[in-house]
Amino acid sequence: MLTELKREAYEANLALPQHGLINLTFGNASAIDRAKGIFAIKPSGVPYSELRPSDMVLVDLKGRKVEGRLNPSSDTPTHRRLFLAFKKIGGVVHTHSTYATAFAQAGRTIPVFGTTHADYFQGDVPITRELADWQIEGAYEWETGNVIAERFFADNLDPLDYPGVLVNHHGPFTWGPTVDNAVEAAIAVECIAQMAILSLQLNPKLGPIEPDLLNRHFKRKHGEGAYYGQKE
Amino acid sequence: MLTELKREAYEANLALPQHGLINLTFGNASAIDRAKGIFAIKPSGVPYSELRPSDMVLVDLKGRKVEGRLNPSSDTPTHRRLFLAFKKIGGVVHTHSTYATAFAQAGRTIPVFGTTHADYFQGDVPITRELADWQIEGAYEWETGNVIAERFFADNLDPLDYPGVLVNHHGPFTWGPTVDNAVEAAIAVECIAQMAILSLQLNPKLGPIEPDLLNRHFKRKHGEGAYYGQKE
Amino acid sequence: MLTELKREAYEANLALPQHGLINLTFGNASAIDRAKGIFAIKPSGVPYSELRPSDMVLVDLKGRKVEGRLNPSSDTPTHRRLFLAFKKIGGVVHTHSTYATAFAQAGRTIPVFGTTHADYFQGDVPITRELADWQIEGAYEWETGNVIAERFFADNLDPLDYPGVLVNHHGPFTWGPTVDNAVEAAIAVECIAQMAILSLQLNPKLGPIEPDLLNRHFKRKHGEGAYYGQKE
Amino acid sequence: MLTELKREAYEANLALPQHGLINLTFGNASAIDRAKGIFAIKPSGVPYSELRPSDMVLVDLKGRKVEGRLNPSSDTPTHRRLFLAFKKIGGVVHTHSTYATAFAQAGRTIPVFGTTHADYFQGDVPITRELADWQIEGAYEWETGNVIAERFFADNLDPLDYPGVLVNHHGPFTWGPTVDNAVEAAIAVECIAQMAILSLQLNPKLGPIEPDLLNRHFKRKHGEGAYYGQKE
Repeated sequence: MLTELKREAYEANLALPQHGLINLTFGNASAIDRAKGIFAIKPSGVPYSELRPSDMVLVDLKGRKVEGRLNPSSDTPTHRRLFLAFKKIGGVVHTHSTYATAFAQAGRTIPVFGTTHADYFQGDVPITRELADWQIEGAYEWETGNVIAERFFADNLDPLDYPGVLVNHHGPFTWGPTVDNAVEAAIAVECIAQMAILSLQLNPKLGPIEPDLLNRHFKRKHGEGAYYGQKE
Repeated sequence: MLTELKREAYEANLALPQHGLINLTFGNASAIDRAKGIFAIKPSGVPYSELRPSDMVLVDLKGRKVEGRLNPSSDTPTHRRLFLAFKKIGGVVHTHSTYATAFAQAGRTIPVFGTTHADYFQGDVPITRELADWQIEGAYEWETGNVIAERFFADNLDPLDYPGVLVNHHGPFTWGPTVDNAVEAAIAVECIAQMAILSLQLNPKLGPIEPDLLNRHFKRKHGEGAYYGQKE
Repeated sequence: MLTELKREAYEANLALPQHGLINLTFGNASAIDRAKGIFAIKPSGVPYSELRPSDMVLVDLKGRKVEGRLNPSSDTPTHRRLFLAFKKIGGVVHTHSTYATAFAQAGRTIPVFGTTHADYFQGDVPITRELADWQIEGAYEWETGNVIAERFFADNLDPLDYPGVLVNHHGPFTWGPTVDNAVEAAIAVECIAQMAILSLQLNPKLGPIEPDLLNRHFKRKHGEGAYYGQKE
Repeated sequence: MLTELKREAYEANLALPQHGLINLTFGNASAIDRAKGIFAIKPSGVPYSELRPSDMVLVDLKGRKVEGRLNPSSDTPTHRRLFLAFKKIGGVVHTHSTYATAFAQAGRTIPVFGTTHADYFQGDVPITRELADWQIEGAYEWETGNVIAERFFADNLDPLDYPGVLVNHHGPFTWGPTVDNAVEAAIAVECIAQMAILSLQLNPKLGPIEPDLLNRHFKRKHGEGAYYGQKE
């Protein structure tokens, strides 16, 4: 069932350690079939080297396991919450990549310091508030999705203009129209986090680039006037 | 004799340079057979590329070589001291991994700044006091084990809740129910040390996460209510 | 047409991710045939792993596509502007390499702190001014080339004495007599940027090396009295 | 002639990029036959990937080329000066490795912050004074060897107790009884430089470890009472 979806999710999961975004089993990727309302996600705690496409677990948007021998990732409720909140996304990735996690741990957004950042995000990489005690003690992973959604709805951020977020004290979640885009966003977030920390080392008072440059770069790649890449 | 134990110790030793935790010959891993009271440990100063399972040296808990052509690691008395102090552990790993060693050299614990840390440690990664001169001049490696044990007994820390320590001015020792767990803890300690130093760069006054979040993450993976991974 | 030129450009493009200078599709290399006034450049947004020599796009110095199925890199007008401004160069490379980009984002030149730097640059790695709003809103990539040329003409810098520049808030462009030299300059700029940021960490008030040492090292490798390498 | 010596020097040169100590062609290794007074050294500016054992150039202690199609490394006079000054060494390595070069550029010694350092050096990694103008303008590479020798003779440092040095504004030279030991010292210097810069980040006022601990670790590996490794 949904063999192609499971393969996509599998390949996205494998791409994470290959790009140096994941140590041990810290991370997971999922891909959704919107028509069926079912997503494929990594099983919990299985080493990447032993993973097979058929190990992917199928879960529906109500959180019920539809198919799979193994338990789905413990972060499954966060993925589910994001698929419900952001209708336009087709894949979600979670990592504990080093530099992005450093920003998350320090409780800071990643400011737009250059064009590399502006190629992917229409502004700072946002950060969630801390979870309340009742959220931590309750349905913790679902509530993690809730504080992400809250952060986006409060400022009316478009999840395709901001393909990721830092969860406070935790690490990045990214997404996109496809799970491949979500992986690309995860690579980009780590890369711009590293550049940002180094830029701050060179100038601790550095401010963001001006809106004109931000918009120019973002629109080279996104929207109707985009001229980066090949038309398809 | 104890071929399987030697193979486990051998594979753990090889995993250390593969995960970038070791340069040259700085490090060693050991695995114990509790029933027999014998542990297998790396021979001293042998390059990882030349190591074979049969090179592992067997040592008993009194410190006598039971089998092996080669001299055991010069750190053998530290491993032995740890196996005696912490009855529940099955393996010990020692590295000079870069970021964890930086904390050890600076004489600082690694604070719990995020959930990556809380997945492995029930609090800060502890650090030992400096050895006294008589300890350095005497049975130095045994005394290294002694200051570790002293640190854990003083605060009544459970070695399974805190699967590692920084030896002051030296570097990390880690452990676990098996030597594989000890390797995993060594990877985790290096990873959280790097994240911690970067988080401190972004916020030099950063405090630890709140106890609720720490406990939630630690208990996702440990103890009776654990729900991370696959039931076996 | 120009098969050899396309192969040179192709190999230079492939060298960029191999040397860790590029993530995703952030970067491009081009090589010019000065006699024909035509250069070969990477197509826009094509993953390095899928690139073939025949994918290189041929463009003339008026900016017209001469040959190629695909769209040329969106940075093509910058390359063209540089080929027009600097008559002695045969290749151009653009990357978002991490440390060099950190300097570009912080708006700082890379100071000459040592002989590694002096082997490649006759002084600081220069940085452009910020583009004006009309430049960002207009022919952005062409204007990027213009601010580079402006920076070099204002101080009468020889592009072979300074084989690269940082574009403010963006990243490095490098060049040389051949595209291979441009790749080498890109590697060197990243390397000296990393050394410079670490040197500044050790001594935030560090000044440049003295002119005698700078000149000695630069002239070991460049000009009539050069004695580094093999005579050809 | 001296085929075995050339092979040793060749393998040492290849080990430098394999251990990440060298980018491009920044570095070289040499091995001496003390009985014949001849050393084998890397040819100048030849890429590591194209190097063959027979490319090594043989030079005598008067600086005359004894055998070889190619020009020897431009740093040959520094190697020769070191072989003359330090009678007990059998090999010399020069790199521009990133962290050690950062200390050299900042004009700082590498302090002994921990046991990793104490395993290799009997104290701080020393740094030379700056070369005088007449030294830079004259026989620059020979004079580079002279300031190293001057540094060691002034404080009566034993080159086997201190198997390397930082040349001010330049980078590390290391050595040892054999060229393999010189390579090992080059790896160790880079490793301890990285740990030291990170330790200083965690504690900018960090002082050196106490002499007892330094001596204990150094003597575990060196001298008559050494008990690290296997007796031969």
